[in-house]
This record gives sequence, C-alpha cells and structure tokens, in this order.
Amino acid sequence: MLTGLSTMWAGRVPLARRIGDRMIIDCHGHYTTAPPQLGEYREAQKAALADDPGHVGAKGTVTIGDDEIRTSLEGAQLRLQRERGTDLTLFSPRASWMGHHIGNVHTSRFWTEQCNDLIRRVCDLYPDNFAPVCQLPQSPGAAIGPSVDELRRCVDEMGFVGANLNPDPSGGWWNGPPLADSSWYPLYEALCELDVPAMIHVSAACNPHFHTTGSHYLGADTTAFMQLLTSDLFADFPSLRLIIPHGGGAVPYHWGRFRGLAQDMGRPPLDELLLGNVFFDTCVYHQAGIDCLLTVIPADNVLFASEMIGAVRGVDPETGHHYDDTRRYIDAADLTDADRTKIFETNARRVFPRLEGAAA
Amino acid sequence: MLTGLSTMWAGRVPLARRIGDRMIIDCHGHYTTAPPQLGEYREAQKAALADDPGHVGAKGTVTIGDDEIRTSLEGAQLRLQRERGTDLTLFSPRASWMGHHIGNVHTSRFWTEQCNDLIRRVCDLYPDNFAPVCQLPQSPGAAIGPSVDELRRCVDEMGFVGANLNPDPSGGWWNGPPLADSSWYPLYEALCELDVPAMIHVSAACNPHFHTTGSHYLGADTTAFMQLLTSDLFADFPSLRLIIPHGGGAVPYHWGRFRGLAQDMGRPPLDELLLGNVFFDTCVYHQAGIDCLLTVIPADNVLFASEMIGAVRGVDPETGHHYDDTRRYIDAADLTDADRTKIFETNARRVFPRLEGAAA
Repeated sequence: MLTGLSTMWAGRVPLARRIGDRMIIDCHGHYTTAPPQLGEYREAQKAALADDPGHVGAKGTVTIGDDEIRTSLEGAQLRLQRERGTDLTLFSPRASWMGHHIGNVHTSRFWTEQCNDLIRRVCDLYPDNFAPVCQLPQSPGAAIGPSVDELRRCVDEMGFVGANLNPDPSGGWWNGPPLADSSWYPLYEALCELDVPAMIHVSAACNPHFHTTGSHYLGADTTAFMQLLTSDLFADFPSLRLIIPHGGGAVPYHWGRFRGLAQDMGRPPLDELLLGNVFFDTCVYHQAGIDCLLTVIPADNVLFASEMIGAVRGVDPETGHHYDDTRRYIDAADLTDADRTKIFETNARRVFPRLEGAAA
Repeated sequence: MLTGLSTMWAGRVPLARRIGDRMIIDCHGHYTTAPPQLGEYREAQKAALADDPGHVGAKGTVTIGDDEIRTSLEGAQLRLQRERGTDLTLFSPRASWMGHHIGNVHTSRFWTEQCNDLIRRVCDLYPDNFAPVCQLPQSPGAAIGPSVDELRRCVDEMGFVGANLNPDPSGGWWNGPPLADSSWYPLYEALCELDVPAMIHVSAACNPHFHTTGSHYLGADTTAFMQLLTSDLFADFPSLRLIIPHGGGAVPYHWGRFRGLAQDMGRPPLDELLLGNVFFDTCVYHQAGIDCLLTVIPADNVLFASEMIGAVRGVDPETGHHYDDTRRYIDAADLTDADRTKIFETNARRVFPRLEGAAA
C-alpha cells in the first residue's frame, strides 16, 4: 500500500537540520533497486497497451511494504553511502525506466505518479539519506501541462527539491521540440516559480543505434548543452537552473570546441552565457576524466554525483574500487579545500535551495 | 574543367619519397574552401530535386581551373600547414556538405564523384601536402553497393588512401541500420581488401535537435564507438581499421564508463576488444582535453589531426592561438618522444598503408 503521503513534509525537517553540518551531497541517484512490484505495475501497463495503444487505465496501487523498501536500499545505496562516506543522495526514479516513449500521456502520468510516490516514501523512511527528485509524465507529442501539474504536486505537496526533464521523450528518435522551443516554457516558468532545478536526463533508447547508458545518455547531454548554447533561453529565464549529468556528456572534454563555436557564432563567452544557469555533475568514472572536468569547468558549476547504483556497477581492476565511487576521484583531484566543499556540498545547496527550506 | 584524372597515380610518388623523412601527418582535413563552382553544382542539384525528388540528372562537369584550386588553398590550409609546421594532410571533401540525406542515390553518386575528383586534383597539384580520402555516395535506405563502387574507383583508379563513412546518412534521424548490421558488410569487405581505413564521420544534421559540429558530430562519434563495443564486428573483420574523429566524441573523457560497461556486459577489455582496430584523432581544441585523451588512450591508437579549416576557426583568447592548432597541445603534452612520433607520423602510416604504397 502507499502510505505516508499525508506526512511527507515531515521528512524535510531532519534533512534541513542535518544540512547545517559538513556533508557530501550526491546530486544524482536513481532508485534502480525498487522492489519488483513496481516493475510488475509497469509490465501490466505495457500488456494493456499492447492490446490497446489508447489504453488509459487508472493510477491503481503498487503494494510495497516499508520493510521491502528498507531491504531494497539497506544492502545497496545505503551500504554504499556508508562505505564511501557520502551523506545525502538526491534520489529520483530509475531514469531508464521513465520510458516516456512507452504508452501515452495517461499511462505516463499514472506510472510517473507511482514512481514519484515511491521516492517520497523512501525519503520519509530515510530523511537523512535521501531527498526527493521527481520524474515527469512526458509523452511524445503531448503538451507539457501534465508535467507542470506533476511538478507542482511533487514540489508543493510532497516536498520534492528538483525534477528530471527528458529532452527527448521519443527515446532516441529526437522528433519533438528542442529545449528552446516555447512549448517547454510553461515547465520552465514553473521550475523558476517553485525555485527547483531540473536535471536534463533522457530515458532508455528504443532506437537501435543508441545504447541507453553508453551513448544515448552522453549524446543527449551534449545535445542539450548545445541547444542551450545556441538559444537565448536564460535571457527569458534568468533564474532557471539546469544540470547536465554524466559530467556534461562530451562538453568539458571539448570545452575548447564549445568556447570556439560560441565565439565564431558571435555568442557571449560561455561563462557569461551559460554558467550562471548550467551545472555539471561528476558522474565520470575515472580520474583523468574528472581531472579534465575540474580543470575547465569552474568549481561553482560542478556538483558531486555518482549515479550509484546506476550505469556501471563493477569494480575497476586498475584501482580496486568501484568505477562509480566518484568521491575518490574528487578527493584525489588537485582542488583547494574551498572548491572541494563547493563541489561536495555548497553548490548543491545553492542549486537545490529547497533542500534547506525547513531551515530557512 | 576536370583535368588530370588519367595521371592521378603520379601524385603518389613524391608523397612516398617524402614520407621517409620525419613528418607531421594530419589525418583529418576537409576541403572546406573549395571554389564556389562546387557549391553551385550542388545548388543546381538541389533545385532540380525540389522540382522532382526522383531527379537523376547526370554527373556533368564542375569547371574549376587549377589556379582557382591553388588560390583556394594557398591562403588557407597551405598557409596554416606552414605556420603550424605540419606536413601532410589526409584531405577529404567537406564533411558537412556530404549531405547524404539530400536527394537520392543517383544525385548522391554524382555529387560524390565530383567532390572526390576535385580532391584528387588538389592532391595532384600539391602531392607533398595532401593525400586523398574520399566521401561515399551513401543515401538513406539505399544499398551500400554504390559506395563500394565509388570506394574502388577512388582507391584503385585514383590512389585514394582512405574513406569517410557516414554512420547516419539520414542526417540526424538515425533511422538506418547500425554499423554492425550485415548490410554494411560489403563495404567492410572492400575496405579490408583494399587495405584502407574508414573514418566514421557524419555530415550535416537536418534534425533541429542537433547542431552539426557542436553535438551531431560528437554524438555520432560516441554512438559509433558504442556500436563497436557491443558488436563482434572485428571478429568478422579482424583487419578493418576505423578512426573515430573529434577525439572520439565523449569516449576518452568517459573511458572509465566504457571500460566498466564492457566489463558489466561480460565483454573483453577494451584494449583487447577494440584497440587493434579503432583509432582516435586529436581534434580536441584545448590542452586539458588532449591531456585526458593521451592519458587514457594508448599512443598506438591516437592519430594527429586538426580538422583545419573546420568547425572552429577562431583564435582562443586564452592562448593567443587558433583553437584548432592542435599541434601545440601535442607538443605541450607529457609524452615521450617515441609516443609523439607515433601520434604525429607512424600511426598514420600504419593505419593508412597506401600512403606508402609507391615506396613499398
């Protein structure tokens, strides 16, 4: 059963108290270990959609006990937090399961509500360890209104602190409007009004050219950044904050290329054009990549993240540690203590101000 | 007029003699400064296609004098070669103009033949400075046969040393077969038989999500690499050599991610799986990016390149030098002399053995 929705705000108080201390905040984690009932709900939706692509259905229920949630996390994300010495994960539904290309706007809405409700329960059970970030009920060709509604429900009614925005709800066909299209504007208006950031994050690819975590994620990150570079989105939304995950895709590695392209186009320098609004996470799974990121992107624009448990789950034989134990790379990087504190903690508090809402 | 086709092989002799000396070989340059008659030919094709998408036409002629070719290069690529101290550029038609999504297999063939013929003329005029690499007459949904034919024409009859292969002839819709699909195999067979490598290089994007040089190129590089990682292409073609341009897209920056993904999938280590066949160029336009590339990719798999005159034409105010003056980054990198020689010269000779054909 779904429980605790009415008391969800309570989860923010201990979080806010905790946040006064030195913390390591991981801005990018997905609930990839949810109990199987969640997947069964989705499979039932897919089965109904196979019979009738216009299937609507109802929200229904996903019956998961609190102990099942605890079990799904204790040996996984919580254990890894303890082992790695990280404190708080901004936690959202499994990105590859958002599957906005599956079904229609109605099934996307019910699925999304269930996923977000479950994230709220996780954060109620472990308010010191997780803060909630929502997925949105996007659907190819659908208006953005239902996503605005779900964002408001999550932030206003359930204390969510951010959202994941899929720039390609088609799942790799890239046939909807780019991010600067005005059809997205109601969502940006709501993000600004609610003072929550969005992470630009695609879901699984259904185009056989793209491997979901190997090429679609990274390509989408780069694509989104270039759409921002060539648009005036932040002139229209000066307070909008967007996070490009996976270390910004190819962007920091090609920072000279992007600086040069902007210059050739007569655009302002990238720091002026974008770095008041665009942030990169540290989901880069080796030292040389992190070093590149930290050399070119100002520390104010980098947020610690691991995406654990996510795309890469193994141990790197070259280091003896998990590839996605990104704290080690930040610890080993040539950073001042002040910059390391920004990356581990204070940037996340600034970009996600609702983390501290109850303490304000 | 088109001249010199019958004497094209003569161009290889001085090149082969020259190559015994220490050289800096730029493996990635496009004829972005071709005289306007070439563009006018293409515009006439487009106009005919606008009237009739089934337009076939004929190869026709592109009337350009030798002096016009000289003028188009002397103040541009040749001047920059001299200024930067590079010797030989592997020169192919302008990548963004390949435009395989435009027209049909017939117009693509005529356009491609004109572009390749012009490259041959450049190399006849400047055999010490340029070696020819061809584009292929790909077309969405078309069989690969005409591309095999053009590859043979270029290599066998005109002394070309390599080809550019577009993994997405749709121009950003990604709706054709991925690279491991057997429909590509006749081309791979020909590449192996002729002992020439292919650079995996898309053309202009016609999908509004993608900026041609900012996101489509880099996304395609990453996408192609992941297709190779997840396939057994090199088990079927052990001697096939593919170059991933633009520093490998996002790949070296995310080398830990790719190593980890391969490991999680039970694939062999990347060096064993791919590095006998896959090479990266150095078209990365800042020092930190080049340093990342050279830290993670073995020197045997890196080929010097600048793509000048290409995507980024400006001067970096942070260095006072052109962004795409990549020789400076290689010179400044922490490399042994032996590795620097591999990257500047000997890898290119190994990957493009027909460069040395006449000297063998």
